[in-house]
Amino acid sequence: MRFYTEYLWFNTEKRREYVRITDKVREACKKSGISEGMILVSAMHISAGVFVNDNERGILQDIDNMLDGLAPFGPDYNHHRTGEDNGDAHLKSILVHHQIIVPVTNGDLDLGPWQQIFYAEFDGRRRKRVIIKVMGE
Amino acid sequence: MRFYTEYLWFNTEKRREYVRITDKVREACKKSGISEGMILVSAMHISAGVFVNDNERGILQDIDNMLDGLAPFGPDYNHHRTGEDNGDAHLKSILVHHQIIVPVTNGDLDLGPWQQIFYAEFDGRRRKRVIIKVMGE
Amino acid sequence: MRFYTEYLWFNTEKRREYVRITDKVREACKKSGISEGMILVSAMHISAGVFVNDNERGILQDIDNMLDGLAPFGPDYNHHRTGEDNGDAHLKSILVHHQIIVPVTNGDLDLGPWQQIFYAEFDGRRRKRVIIKVMGE
Repeated sequence: MRFYTEYLWFNTEKRREYVRITDKVREACKKSGISEGMILVSAMHISAGVFVNDNERGILQDIDNMLDGLAPFGPDYNHHRTGEDNGDAHLKSILVHHQIIVPVTNGDLDLGPWQQIFYAEFDGRRRKRVIIKVMGE
Repeated sequence: MRFYTEYLWFNTEKRREYVRITDKVREACKKSGISEGMILVSAMHISAGVFVNDNERGILQDIDNMLDGLAPFGPDYNHHRTGEDNGDAHLKSILVHHQIIVPVTNGDLDLGPWQQIFYAEFDGRRRKRVIIKVMGE
Repeated sequence: MRFYTEYLWFNTEKRREYVRITDKVREACKKSGISEGMILVSAMHISAGVFVNDNERGILQDIDNMLDGLAPFGPDYNHHRTGEDNGDAHLKSILVHHQIIVPVTNGDLDLGPWQQIFYAEFDGRRRKRVIIKVMGE
């Protein structure tokens, strides 16, 4: 049984940003040396997420529009009584989910043809982390 | 350590459809021969999902109504500039999530009494796939 | 390869309640004796969820407000033709997702500094279960 752990760091320029990380996850898979198994890709912050979707500019904008419609950036959150201003980012993280599992078959990510992995930053402009944990044989 | 991988194919009649696949996942569990472990059930398309809920016609309609309320089928998505018409399906996939993990204990799916596994098709009428990956001992 | 399974029982006083269970998951990790691996934490009911977020009263209220905005408690669900009154709880479970995976590194939960694990009860005041399944070495 093999385990391999890596941490990706992000420091986005914009408050909200969607960063494609498929190649980083594939590299971790190769480094781990496994041919069968699973890779957990999980945000380590509560104002970020990880999702699988299309690497197409329009749909990424549509995802952002939907999330900001359902959990708008703005002042009216109970959370802001603590002095924070990122209540919307917590809620967006809940909706998108903060993690995915990537299956590994024959030594590579077993993704469909259009599936790309994204880090979803909802409160950026500071250093934040994602854990990649590979488990397999 | 045992690994077992299977792909389920779907070609739904309707654009949106919810297909119960608990028995298929249980069969894969039996074929794998594991008694302890985890099973990843994951859509391989970005306009589909996998979820656990009740096998009751009314709630499946309620789920569909909610998703189409939050991410309505229609023309007004940036993604459609590419010629696609399925922007809503991508968003529904994000909301439902595209995958689940089923725990395996004593050689069987360790689900609660009402938990059933569903494939959620949001842009059907064409061949699409789900991966079942079993990992355990 | 080690496996360890535990079931947590809940019987909340209120219909909706968010219960921090990070310490229970950490105890299960210690009992399992693994130093590397993954822990599945998964609701066994279709009207409950598990999520990772901030242990801050305001944001938990914000999460509840958002969920009840998107899937309001009320009478108008098809599911209620069965005699049930918890259609909203099923929908909230879909939105939050019913499970998470916690990575384990060096014998402990590998969580970010603010990440806490919560059981989300959407139809409480009765006994309900969560499975914790540890898998690693």
